Amino acid sequence: MAEATSKSRLTRIALAGVSGYAGAELARLLLQHPRRSASSLLFLGRPEDIEPGSLDELHPQLTGLAPELPPVLPFSWERLAAFGADILLLATPHEQSREWSPLAIDQGIRVIDLSGAWRLQNASNRTVYGLKDVHPHAAADLQAAAVFGAPELHREEIASARLVANPGCYATSIILALVPLLRANLIDLDHGIIADAKSGVSGAGKAATPKTHFMYAADNLSAYAVFNHRHTGELLEQLSLTSDQIQFTPHLLPIPRGILSTVYLRLKQRGTAAQIEEIFRSFYAGHPMVRVRAAGILPQIQNVVRTNFCDLGFELGPDGRRLVLIACLDNLLKGAAGQAIQNLNLMLGWGEAEGLR
Amino acid sequence: MAEATSKSRLTRIALAGVSGYAGAELARLLLQHPRRSASSLLFLGRPEDIEPGSLDELHPQLTGLAPELPPVLPFSWERLAAFGADILLLATPHEQSREWSPLAIDQGIRVIDLSGAWRLQNASNRTVYGLKDVHPHAAADLQAAAVFGAPELHREEIASARLVANPGCYATSIILALVPLLRANLIDLDHGIIADAKSGVSGAGKAATPKTHFMYAADNLSAYAVFNHRHTGELLEQLSLTSDQIQFTPHLLPIPRGILSTVYLRLKQRGTAAQIEEIFRSFYAGHPMVRVRAAGILPQIQNVVRTNFCDLGFELGPDGRRLVLIACLDNLLKGAAGQAIQNLNLMLGWGEAEGLR
Amino acid sequence: MAEATSKSRLTRIALAGVSGYAGAELARLLLQHPRRSASSLLFLGRPEDIEPGSLDELHPQLTGLAPELPPVLPFSWERLAAFGADILLLATPHEQSREWSPLAIDQGIRVIDLSGAWRLQNASNRTVYGLKDVHPHAAADLQAAAVFGAPELHREEIASARLVANPGCYATSIILALVPLLRANLIDLDHGIIADAKSGVSGAGKAATPKTHFMYAADNLSAYAVFNHRHTGELLEQLSLTSDQIQFTPHLLPIPRGILSTVYLRLKQRGTAAQIEEIFRSFYAGHPMVRVRAAGILPQIQNVVRTNFCDLGFELGPDGRRLVLIACLDNLLKGAAGQAIQNLNLMLGWGEAEGLR
Amino acid sequence: MAEATSKSRLTRIALAGVSGYAGAELARLLLQHPRRSASSLLFLGRPEDIEPGSLDELHPQLTGLAPELPPVLPFSWERLAAFGADILLLATPHEQSREWSPLAIDQGIRVIDLSGAWRLQNASNRTVYGLKDVHPHAAADLQAAAVFGAPELHREEIASARLVANPGCYATSIILALVPLLRANLIDLDHGIIADAKSGVSGAGKAATPKTHFMYAADNLSAYAVFNHRHTGELLEQLSLTSDQIQFTPHLLPIPRGILSTVYLRLKQRGTAAQIEEIFRSFYAGHPMVRVRAAGILPQIQNVVRTNFCDLGFELGPDGRRLVLIACLDNLLKGAAGQAIQNLNLMLGWGEAEGLR
Repeated sequence: MAEATSKSRLTRIALAGVSGYAGAELARLLLQHPRRSASSLLFLGRPEDIEPGSLDELHPQLTGLAPELPPVLPFSWERLAAFGADILLLATPHEQSREWSPLAIDQGIRVIDLSGAWRLQNASNRTVYGLKDVHPHAAADLQAAAVFGAPELHREEIASARLVANPGCYATSIILALVPLLRANLIDLDHGIIADAKSGVSGAGKAATPKTHFMYAADNLSAYAVFNHRHTGELLEQLSLTSDQIQFTPHLLPIPRGILSTVYLRLKQRGTAAQIEEIFRSFYAGHPMVRVRAAGILPQIQNVVRTNFCDLGFELGPDGRRLVLIACLDNLLKGAAGQAIQNLNLMLGWGEAEGLR
Repeated sequence: MAEATSKSRLTRIALAGVSGYAGAELARLLLQHPRRSASSLLFLGRPEDIEPGSLDELHPQLTGLAPELPPVLPFSWERLAAFGADILLLATPHEQSREWSPLAIDQGIRVIDLSGAWRLQNASNRTVYGLKDVHPHAAADLQAAAVFGAPELHREEIASARLVANPGCYATSIILALVPLLRANLIDLDHGIIADAKSGVSGAGKAATPKTHFMYAADNLSAYAVFNHRHTGELLEQLSLTSDQIQFTPHLLPIPRGILSTVYLRLKQRGTAAQIEEIFRSFYAGHPMVRVRAAGILPQIQNVVRTNFCDLGFELGPDGRRLVLIACLDNLLKGAAGQAIQNLNLMLGWGEAEGLR
Repeated sequence: MAEATSKSRLTRIALAGVSGYAGAELARLLLQHPRRSASSLLFLGRPEDIEPGSLDELHPQLTGLAPELPPVLPFSWERLAAFGADILLLATPHEQSREWSPLAIDQGIRVIDLSGAWRLQNASNRTVYGLKDVHPHAAADLQAAAVFGAPELHREEIASARLVANPGCYATSIILALVPLLRANLIDLDHGIIADAKSGVSGAGKAATPKTHFMYAADNLSAYAVFNHRHTGELLEQLSLTSDQIQFTPHLLPIPRGILSTVYLRLKQRGTAAQIEEIFRSFYAGHPMVRVRAAGILPQIQNVVRTNFCDLGFELGPDGRRLVLIACLDNLLKGAAGQAIQNLNLMLGWGEAEGLR
Repeated sequence: MAEATSKSRLTRIALAGVSGYAGAELARLLLQHPRRSASSLLFLGRPEDIEPGSLDELHPQLTGLAPELPPVLPFSWERLAAFGADILLLATPHEQSREWSPLAIDQGIRVIDLSGAWRLQNASNRTVYGLKDVHPHAAADLQAAAVFGAPELHREEIASARLVANPGCYATSIILALVPLLRANLIDLDHGIIADAKSGVSGAGKAATPKTHFMYAADNLSAYAVFNHRHTGELLEQLSLTSDQIQFTPHLLPIPRGILSTVYLRLKQRGTAAQIEEIFRSFYAGHPMVRVRAAGILPQIQNVVRTNFCDLGFELGPDGRRLVLIACLDNLLKGAAGQAIQNLNLMLGWGEAEGLR
């Protein structure tokens, strides 16, 4: 294998869980990355994929993307060790990620985990995932060291992290919409915040279930997990809010991909559209993957689909206090694989947006 | 014409504006109505339709619905007078409806208007329509006599009305979700209500515009008219709210038809799901076109599309005070043509749900 | 049960397999049928549905369709016997239908089977279903007596049939497009016929599989079962063609329901559009559920969805010999449940189109 | 402008008609092209766009794609001359392209025209476009020199062409499916070929018309232009067929983008799947944008959307003579803008697939 020969000088990136939707996007982004020639890739299946098959078979859209596609191999620690991975991307179920991350880190491999396994510091928030730790103390230590992988909030910690917990798709959109105003202490938190979010079907994963059946999702809209969606904990922790201060309702949209979150809040004092826009623009200056739209220009899903951008816009009420924020992103890119590559870039000292536009 | 022979004993129903989406649904509902044999129908085009064509050409889906389809004739007052209409359904633009309704009523014809022309009693709310009255005094009198055609709120006034202003599609969903709780005085109005509503593309009408282009609407979601949608006035007037007390954000869904409104409010006091459900059930007892879903069963668009039902459901927060209401309906049926037939049934003393399930 | 009291005078109709898509449509059509008050209904689950649940839970869109919805009961022969069914509609898998139909007929119950179990007289065509008969001789006798339930071809045999095999959805569209020209002996069969057919996802059934996943079907089109789709046998037998004479390619459309078949053939001799149209019109005169469109007006799916009509149209090439036929229908109605009700109407001596427009 | 400083050493690429769908894709591909830093770009509106606006406003999805987006300027010959364009991409209506191409070439600018203006050598085939030439002789000369821009057929002529006529989207899919077998002389042309093609709505362009209205296209399928679609001429000329030998029926799919063509033909002699596959593989060896799928693996639209690949696959009938070819591509990429960039790459001596995967 030509890839292996000069392996010592290359950045060795392993990806486990290539068979899912986020896995497919990660594979594509890694194969098209401008640093491709300086990196060596290892694609592994999910634990249940004994014979994961080729990338061609798993994701026929990827055929021909590179002169030669890497094989997809069954996951094993021996294989990972032989490869000498610098970084392991986990696009695996949260139970798997919770079990594997400490093992990888023990081998000196840095981990970017796309599941919810490590996102939440507060144990009570984490109960929604029903995680069981084999070595609770070690897990607690690793949890404390895990960095929430939102580059717009934690760029420096990500750069040096051993374990990055890649954020949830809904959470990313709502956090990015709210954090500039919260940091500026402008929101009337006693009044509370409402996030009415809508996501395409890929957010529900690749498993064929009654709710991912075309006949259920098409020509439909439905709310679900009202008051108890798993991403709520990320909002509370990253935004330092209590559960009384924010309320989040997800809906299933009849589209393949994309999230639009409509966020309602009240300002402490009357503001102007120009002030609000300036707060967003100054907060996101230097952050290449957030696009602040001018006052009155509302983001929409079709402008972000198949990109790693999060688009932000707003409308201020005639009273100068009621504010509607709109945040859009592609749940598989900025909401999953794209943000993971953003984190990978930071961890490797590469340009944050390389391979993402 | 066989229809004409025994005309004196038949209920004579005229429909103007058969070429649009609501017009097509009205034509279908009238042709399939169980009282069809006791009624005589006159289908008229819109004023701009000099040669409106046949029902077949306008709406090929209607071919064969009845042994013989009535012709679609150009609109004229002479034709309407010769027909001897008892009731005129106006599926016309609001300017047209505003001009024609007084003329029809002067001829003794009762009117059901599907536009926004007569829905709003408060002149300042009505400015969004930019209506100009040729005879302002007469128009003011007629406006005062117009009945807002929500059968669940005004069944008796509708039955005897000369002019029924058929409600807006968004407004219907939000009003039906809120009115039971408002009547029971349970909502904390100081806190305010938020209605986040989503509608299919037929709500935007049949005109080919950049926003009704398939490429704009498909695989997309977009908010629009934030803080200034025309239906807001209906909410304020029918629910006796001030503009500080309710906030309404419409979104364009990538589906042909259907509305889902997610309504957020806070109860004055802690309540239980059983109490909320009971309030809805008792309010809508005897109202055949509203389906109250059990606590925890959330309505979704696919269950109401192509029906005249409004489905209502809710989720109460763990604090017993934050309440999320979900209302769904088909914007062309319960949100337009179906509700108009409900009103027609009431005005003619027929069963309210006849021809609607 | 009020239904049971005057049972002797009512037509007793049982439906087994109410949980699937065709089952839901059958339930709706039976509940809305104009002969509803003269019939008694028994809704049964599929054999695997131990606790089939209520109609409300299975199909929430049906709530409120009738003042009181019949319960859905577990299937049992005792229950069927106690009910005293006159007719049993089977919306069950073909293995089940093959096993149950003789048992029902032995009890004197007439059967309309919506599966493929009994459609094919030729045993070699039937091998695609892998059917196993417990009593081969009885099954062979019943097979010989089974009537293919295309009312436009076999109206009289259906009226007196003990067992009606309701046609396949694709087959219905192609058969209705071709039969008038074949009967008139106009088609150059040596040249061969090509049927390029496209169906919405409901045709694939309610099971959640990788191919019914929204992410597979949406924004996609794919051909499948080229040269070996199960409905081919119906084409051969009903049209008296050999497998060399017709070729059928199905495609999966990204829509919930609807079939469009584009059929290519060559006429033996030059013809005119007027001649072709006349052949179709005269063949389908008196057949209320087929709509022949004028030459040059091509059927499209949106005009037949949610109706029981099959729309037929065509375009004749400039050479007067190459002919393109277009046939459209709703696969769940004319292609399944609606056609079954058409057959039910015929079997009971009711109007063929009653309850179907 | 930094772009202008070292202009003399850069390849100067102008694009006229950036406002349409193909224009947006061209802009995106040019901005992301690996040779971006070695090229200077000029984006011009369509002639009717007096104030074409910024790229941001025209195509909000492109915001942030490059550190600074080029402005979109009104088209003028002075501007083009001042820029010193080497190549002009015309994403303009065919009348405009027919008028402008000679003027540009007279100025020494090479042209890639994405319209149908120059694709057809045979004047009678060209009548479908209703083109009028101001200088008929010059136009005839230029027509004769125009190269049909299918790189898989005319790679060398394209490399040196003054004027490249970028192929039609439907035509590309059908030509690429058929040409290997035609060159190998395997097809029974007396029997004739049928191409049943299906395209997403973007193929109909950005104009808001009744047929691009969401309500017309969604949940629908319709055939159109049977026997007389404009792309037929390209099939005849590029494949050297007579109009008796091939028949082409386009359909409008309810998806934004993508074409699937199902092509039916008969081989002169019995063949095997392995032989057919080998013919395709050897023909397309060295052609990076065509992916030949293994026998029995059928291409589908979702695997090519948002790529510049044309996927080819087939199924051979049990008789070894009837062959069904399936070709898929993205109508805006391989069917328009992507193929234009492929041609641009060839004309500039760059790698054919650069910037396209």
